[in-house]
Amino acid sequence: MSQEIRSALDVIFSAGAEIYKSRGFQRKLGFGVRPALVNIDLANAWTQPDGAFACDNMDDVIGAVQRLLLVSRKQSIPVIFTSIAYAMVDGDHSDMGLLAQKVPIDCLKLGSDAVTIDSRVAPRPDELVVIKKNASAFHGTFLSSYLHMHGVDTVIFTGVTMAGCVRHTVEDAIAEGFRPIVVREAVSDRIPGATEWNLFDIDAKFGDVESLSTTVEYLERLK
Amino acid sequence: MSQEIRSALDVIFSAGAEIYKSRGFQRKLGFGVRPALVNIDLANAWTQPDGAFACDNMDDVIGAVQRLLLVSRKQSIPVIFTSIAYAMVDGDHSDMGLLAQKVPIDCLKLGSDAVTIDSRVAPRPDELVVIKKNASAFHGTFLSSYLHMHGVDTVIFTGVTMAGCVRHTVEDAIAEGFRPIVVREAVSDRIPGATEWNLFDIDAKFGDVESLSTTVEYLERLK
Amino acid sequence: MSQEIRSALDVIFSAGAEIYKSRGFQRKLGFGVRPALVNIDLANAWTQPDGAFACDNMDDVIGAVQRLLLVSRKQSIPVIFTSIAYAMVDGDHSDMGLLAQKVPIDCLKLGSDAVTIDSRVAPRPDELVVIKKNASAFHGTFLSSYLHMHGVDTVIFTGVTMAGCVRHTVEDAIAEGFRPIVVREAVSDRIPGATEWNLFDIDAKFGDVESLSTTVEYLERLK
Amino acid sequence: MSQEIRSALDVIFSAGAEIYKSRGFQRKLGFGVRPALVNIDLANAWTQPDGAFACDNMDDVIGAVQRLLLVSRKQSIPVIFTSIAYAMVDGDHSDMGLLAQKVPIDCLKLGSDAVTIDSRVAPRPDELVVIKKNASAFHGTFLSSYLHMHGVDTVIFTGVTMAGCVRHTVEDAIAEGFRPIVVREAVSDRIPGATEWNLFDIDAKFGDVESLSTTVEYLERLK
Repeated sequence: MSQEIRSALDVIFSAGAEIYKSRGFQRKLGFGVRPALVNIDLANAWTQPDGAFACDNMDDVIGAVQRLLLVSRKQSIPVIFTSIAYAMVDGDHSDMGLLAQKVPIDCLKLGSDAVTIDSRVAPRPDELVVIKKNASAFHGTFLSSYLHMHGVDTVIFTGVTMAGCVRHTVEDAIAEGFRPIVVREAVSDRIPGATEWNLFDIDAKFGDVESLSTTVEYLERLK
Repeated sequence: MSQEIRSALDVIFSAGAEIYKSRGFQRKLGFGVRPALVNIDLANAWTQPDGAFACDNMDDVIGAVQRLLLVSRKQSIPVIFTSIAYAMVDGDHSDMGLLAQKVPIDCLKLGSDAVTIDSRVAPRPDELVVIKKNASAFHGTFLSSYLHMHGVDTVIFTGVTMAGCVRHTVEDAIAEGFRPIVVREAVSDRIPGATEWNLFDIDAKFGDVESLSTTVEYLERLK
Repeated sequence: MSQEIRSALDVIFSAGAEIYKSRGFQRKLGFGVRPALVNIDLANAWTQPDGAFACDNMDDVIGAVQRLLLVSRKQSIPVIFTSIAYAMVDGDHSDMGLLAQKVPIDCLKLGSDAVTIDSRVAPRPDELVVIKKNASAFHGTFLSSYLHMHGVDTVIFTGVTMAGCVRHTVEDAIAEGFRPIVVREAVSDRIPGATEWNLFDIDAKFGDVESLSTTVEYLERLK
Repeated sequence: MSQEIRSALDVIFSAGAEIYKSRGFQRKLGFGVRPALVNIDLANAWTQPDGAFACDNMDDVIGAVQRLLLVSRKQSIPVIFTSIAYAMVDGDHSDMGLLAQKVPIDCLKLGSDAVTIDSRVAPRPDELVVIKKNASAFHGTFLSSYLHMHGVDTVIFTGVTMAGCVRHTVEDAIAEGFRPIVVREAVSDRIPGATEWNLFDIDAKFGDVESLSTTVEYLERLK
């Protein structure tokens, strides 16, 4: 992000934060006792350079996710990955719904390399990969039932994009009764500024934005 | 919005729009053939000055909504209003879920003046008022079934706030299979800049942002 | 139930039970560690004699529910009631959906005596009353989020009717990740035999059917 | 079904039907204008003899479905198939939820022959196959969004089992705003009597039970 954009955002956020604080928004939900790690759309279409879906800063994001995977697996908490893919596109019977008319989904074919999770953060065989058709990992999937069945009360989020799939998933998470935690160093977008303003909105109303170190410490202390 | 913030947003959006355009985002869904008008949280807690939930620019928003109500009623399309309210808060058994721990819901008691739709845009007896517990008007409500039962394919959105309830509802709308249209002059927020960056994100991925005049013209041409 | 119907059902169920057992159905889910009590449609339209919705054997059902309420309140577990009601019926914009075209909902007006919970099992102010538009207490409501937010893993069901609202709610409960327990003495229907065949189907696939005494003992042992 | 069971059911249903009729239940929803054909769990585990999930009378059911497929494809209405499959079962992190603890899912591995749609009614490449984790084809899937996006108002159901997946799916269908039509000759179960009592319950409250010939005639008349 350029210094110009960073400065512009700082001006906006400091005014907004003052309004939120004085009115009682931006409270912390806090971590619960039974977390899961949900990694949004860390498939090659998003993590690799070039291509319509490629995001910024992905090496840093992958590094942060690797650290979260390590401690999550050590602690045996549920680890989930998501990807977006269509299985069928004949005539107007595409299984991607209206999203296919708004954004360029052509490369997201089920089974292709583009929709496969990046090998640097590859799922283990006992980790769930949810294929979704929409931005939210909860909409039209069994993710909520899966997490609840495992007694999860807190969902730690990583991935992309902040203006799309991560944000919508976080909003749904609190509505479903989970405490959403977004790890600042582990999320990104492809638009300069979009990561920051969506983190700002989320922290005000939908979930807690926490640093990687705070999140790792919390996970290490579990049990 | 100050000139300083407006300039800052312009810098950010022009860079982002170029990326989106060149990659095939920001396409238009277009209007469908059977619209409904959904007015998000135009209750007194949001529309009247002062108070934790009060939003900016509400007289203009109310004026725009009045114009949409007039043509929508003339055309007999479904008109829906939403509000947020809790019915019960004893111990930890509040029916507002975790949202009550993130934002200041104390004034939003079911049946109170705060959660009643502003009299300037009062619902008629045959118009649905959905009481919700979350940001999205679709989550934990029968709104989707109601709209689908009436054959609706397009949902025109007004109301507040862009960083919260309008945005989450729009995201859910496209996931549910509706074409979301957000009327620029008929939405707002309480944070400077938040209306603009959420309209920017929505137009890129979740729905079409249209002007009041374009929307009114569309409604007038129906049938 | 007449002896003729009872004998007929016994013939059918004994053949069916043998098939289920030999193939590995009809397993017990068992009680979990954090239950809630959900009482389906114990409003006057269903509990009082006469009227389209009146059910059989309601004095016994009410007696069983009273016993469950007593121990549930002593143990401070979440207690929930449901009722069905429409708020609006103008033209085809009824908020009851297609159900209004299939069954006689005319008497179920929001706020009427018919949809008020029977005073013999009246909710306390801190107990949630969910107004639903469909058979399932989960569909189009925030019940799932409410239960999950309170860490509930087991839902104990009472009420009516077994062929309608109780059955659909139980099916949704297991899909949402809850262990459904149906208390045999606390449920009923208005059709001879319908209670029995729906309990039979549920016990085979969707939840555990338990006696009142087993359920009360479980609740008393909690903590 | 034995004559003994058939007679027993007749006794029960005639008493029940009289109650329903006199009280205003068992109304017809009627066919709408834009149908889809949804075939529930016609995979080999259910359609082939032997095995835990095998159902009765499947050659007749397949024959009826073939006739419906022929006219549905001629009329270009959406055709959907469902199957149940798990992708992962390590420790307690199975993606099948609590259903795996109630019924014998061991053979239902994703990609196996057991969960593949019977070749006699094989899906075409442009027809959607929904893999579900629960009884209902709507729960935890994008089926509702898919149907709504295609403007569907009526869902014609075939498949198995009547006591499980077909029934729960039909109940959800009317709640989602669709007119459910169950084709009597195209559905079955593995328990004697279960097909009949679930059709009886559905026709009273959740959807219309129609004959194959009535349904085929309706489809042929479309447009």
